[in-house]
Amino acid sequence: MSDAIYDLVIIGGGPAGYVAAIRAGQLGKKVAVIEMERAGGTCLNWGCIPTKALLKSAELYRSFQKADAYGLSATGVSFDFAKVVERSRGVAATMAKGVEFLFKKNKVDYFVGKGSVVMAGMVEVTAGEHKGKFFKTKNILLCTGQKPKQLPGLPADGVRVMTSREALAAKAPPKSIAIIGAGAIGVEFAYFFNAFGSKVTLIEMLPQVLPVEDEEVAKVLERSFTKQGIAIHTGTKCENIRSGATSVKLDLVKDGTKTELEVETILVAIGITANLEGLVSPKVKLELDRGFVKVDATYQTSTPGIYAAGDIQGPPWLAHVASFRAVQAVEGMFGHAKPKLVGNFPGCTYCQPQVASTGLTEKQAKEKKLDYKVGKFPFTAVGKAVAAGDTEGFVKVIADAKTGEILGVHIIGNEATELIAEYGLAMSLEATIDEIHDSIHAHPTLSEALGEAALATHGKAIHI
Amino acid sequence: MSDAIYDLVIIGGGPAGYVAAIRAGQLGKKVAVIEMERAGGTCLNWGCIPTKALLKSAELYRSFQKADAYGLSATGVSFDFAKVVERSRGVAATMAKGVEFLFKKNKVDYFVGKGSVVMAGMVEVTAGEHKGKFFKTKNILLCTGQKPKQLPGLPADGVRVMTSREALAAKAPPKSIAIIGAGAIGVEFAYFFNAFGSKVTLIEMLPQVLPVEDEEVAKVLERSFTKQGIAIHTGTKCENIRSGATSVKLDLVKDGTKTELEVETILVAIGITANLEGLVSPKVKLELDRGFVKVDATYQTSTPGIYAAGDIQGPPWLAHVASFRAVQAVEGMFGHAKPKLVGNFPGCTYCQPQVASTGLTEKQAKEKKLDYKVGKFPFTAVGKAVAAGDTEGFVKVIADAKTGEILGVHIIGNEATELIAEYGLAMSLEATIDEIHDSIHAHPTLSEALGEAALATHGKAIHI
Repeated sequence: MSDAIYDLVIIGGGPAGYVAAIRAGQLGKKVAVIEMERAGGTCLNWGCIPTKALLKSAELYRSFQKADAYGLSATGVSFDFAKVVERSRGVAATMAKGVEFLFKKNKVDYFVGKGSVVMAGMVEVTAGEHKGKFFKTKNILLCTGQKPKQLPGLPADGVRVMTSREALAAKAPPKSIAIIGAGAIGVEFAYFFNAFGSKVTLIEMLPQVLPVEDEEVAKVLERSFTKQGIAIHTGTKCENIRSGATSVKLDLVKDGTKTELEVETILVAIGITANLEGLVSPKVKLELDRGFVKVDATYQTSTPGIYAAGDIQGPPWLAHVASFRAVQAVEGMFGHAKPKLVGNFPGCTYCQPQVASTGLTEKQAKEKKLDYKVGKFPFTAVGKAVAAGDTEGFVKVIADAKTGEILGVHIIGNEATELIAEYGLAMSLEATIDEIHDSIHAHPTLSEALGEAALATHGKAIHI
Repeated sequence: MSDAIYDLVIIGGGPAGYVAAIRAGQLGKKVAVIEMERAGGTCLNWGCIPTKALLKSAELYRSFQKADAYGLSATGVSFDFAKVVERSRGVAATMAKGVEFLFKKNKVDYFVGKGSVVMAGMVEVTAGEHKGKFFKTKNILLCTGQKPKQLPGLPADGVRVMTSREALAAKAPPKSIAIIGAGAIGVEFAYFFNAFGSKVTLIEMLPQVLPVEDEEVAKVLERSFTKQGIAIHTGTKCENIRSGATSVKLDLVKDGTKTELEVETILVAIGITANLEGLVSPKVKLELDRGFVKVDATYQTSTPGIYAAGDIQGPPWLAHVASFRAVQAVEGMFGHAKPKLVGNFPGCTYCQPQVASTGLTEKQAKEKKLDYKVGKFPFTAVGKAVAAGDTEGFVKVIADAKTGEILGVHIIGNEATELIAEYGLAMSLEATIDEIHDSIHAHPTLSEALGEAALATHGKAIHI
């Protein structure tokens, strides 16, 4: 039993937990992180980061196939899928090592093991090499995040049935794959496997791919994916999924019509579930809300001294939101600053064309009966996009019709995930569309479309 | 002689002139543009746009060479230089056609020819198919821009001696090339020709490449270029340039030491000069300042009714600044809005790694004796950069030590030219560094480095 008394013990070392630990370390606090697997959590080891490495290989592979359009040629373009995956694992390992280094630098004690709250002020390690260790601590922060939901009766086996986790360590691109769920994860893997030659069927129960995104964006993405060779079924349910020795059969049901699909593998991307198993002893009262840990405005759970931050709190399940919440929780618990709640935040999908957005979709603005106007500017009218030979997509700005306040921004196209940053700042500063187009955007850049879309809300865009 | 009376006649159809015309058209004005060559001007036909097309081919060609690192392989990789250049010319032509379409859409009369001001209220076409045509007009806007400076006695011949203009239509990459001047143009062509196999020597009289950029940025670029195989000579003068039948010889003089260099071709990128030849009749008073047209706060020249906007006004010679000035001039002359002067603006260089900045360099902050602090964040610590295998460079923020006001931002690295947009808005809104890092940046994106650099000014960056 450890006698050390910590200021803060954090359970879970993902983008909430590790960032919280570093911030607390910066504040001079004595901090421990207990992480079951590897520093960096899902995001860094089995999510955001390794997928981006895979996608980079996929993009590059696809760009090689278009070499001719750029005056280039290559006679033999091929890929070694094992190397593609190995590189991705290597990137994740590098980043995880980086987090471990940051722990040392910030004097954070790091333990691999399963942490469990005995009571406020006391954490036990219940599995792993430190099993049986107890930590006394002034504060506890729960950051165990989430894991992919599985299909009932069809757990991921890495061969016939995968979640994102198994897909990240695939041995080869399946000849055919059905991806169930067209949220960001489903869409990114659809792009990835299609690029490497899999026959991809993407299935979404809701009426559009990327259901949280603006309808117009989803339409353009559906068109682009279809052109890339991906079969898309929206408004479609999967029923009667049968995993066999060499294939999986499932029924696609749309408007009462049933079609059978047979594929080598299915990828289940139907959502996530909070990692709560064994997290607190039965004596600890931890109020939940729809399966996620309920917190107050200071990120404190229903038990004083126990805080929670990140995906475990519920949506939006985004790494950057998790980190933000975690920093706020820490700054609040040590009286450093009044914790802020999450205001506007960007959401990104890294297929090609990329999708990024912040704020309301047009449908949401309509539902809220807001008096809004829309400015839209296509990348076909942007010099840099034409020069790069990549003109798919647009920037769409939704603004209050009277005040010009920015209500929502939706980008589909090359580098959308970087371009969203300017509007992210604009919305958090409550800037108006006029302030956007009054700011001089460099020529020639894709960011010119940000200014032009703002002008377009007045019907004043220059280049359309 | 035309009897039409225009509200505005614009001489020069580049990013100042054509944007002014469209804006005036939007305001319902009767407008004519007289352009000597092709709509879009230098920027679109012989500058920003076609260079970006060339650079895209160069980047892709270089990425082929790194395929292995991404689990890919490409054999028999080659380029067809004529096709690379042809594509670039095609991109320029597409964009020029686009401007001509916008003229029609906005009811702008467009004449190819050389425009010359007879007096306030009267413009004559002095060359081209419309020669002898006169235009009566309420306002005149001079937007003839600039052209590259030539070496005295060594005009560009497209073989031994090139300016950017000839380089844009080169038939083949020269075996060896000396680029005189390491501003944005020199640096971009150095990257381009080096990528396609030329032996490149880049020569700059001042102590660093990209003399207007921050010293630390220039150092990283010099290191990167040297690694790419470019020979760099800063603080070096070129003397005794002798163009021969098969080569050019020149003396590089540094600290009194002379070295002879022999190359197939030289590219002269030593600055620009305003296009004033025959622009106004001798009777028209046009006050100049160091060779550029002097204007007042309403963009009016020394002769009432004659305005000037864009590069012809003097530095900064940037297309986006030219367009901004032109819109202001038009809105002012028609009483639509009080014309604004150029505040902060971004500057971009599109080699790899890219360079972008806005505001003061650290040296300038020092010279102004400002009480500043610096936050620097490297892309090696950014997950997206690691995932993409492209970790060169950093974001550097210079902020007022007391108020946190952003004084300058300097980025070197992948997509720097897009990333600068957020800080461009921040500076035009006079935002503080705290407002930057309080805005949630999407993970994983390169834009995270923007927030981290802001935190770094407080010593609070998370990932270093």
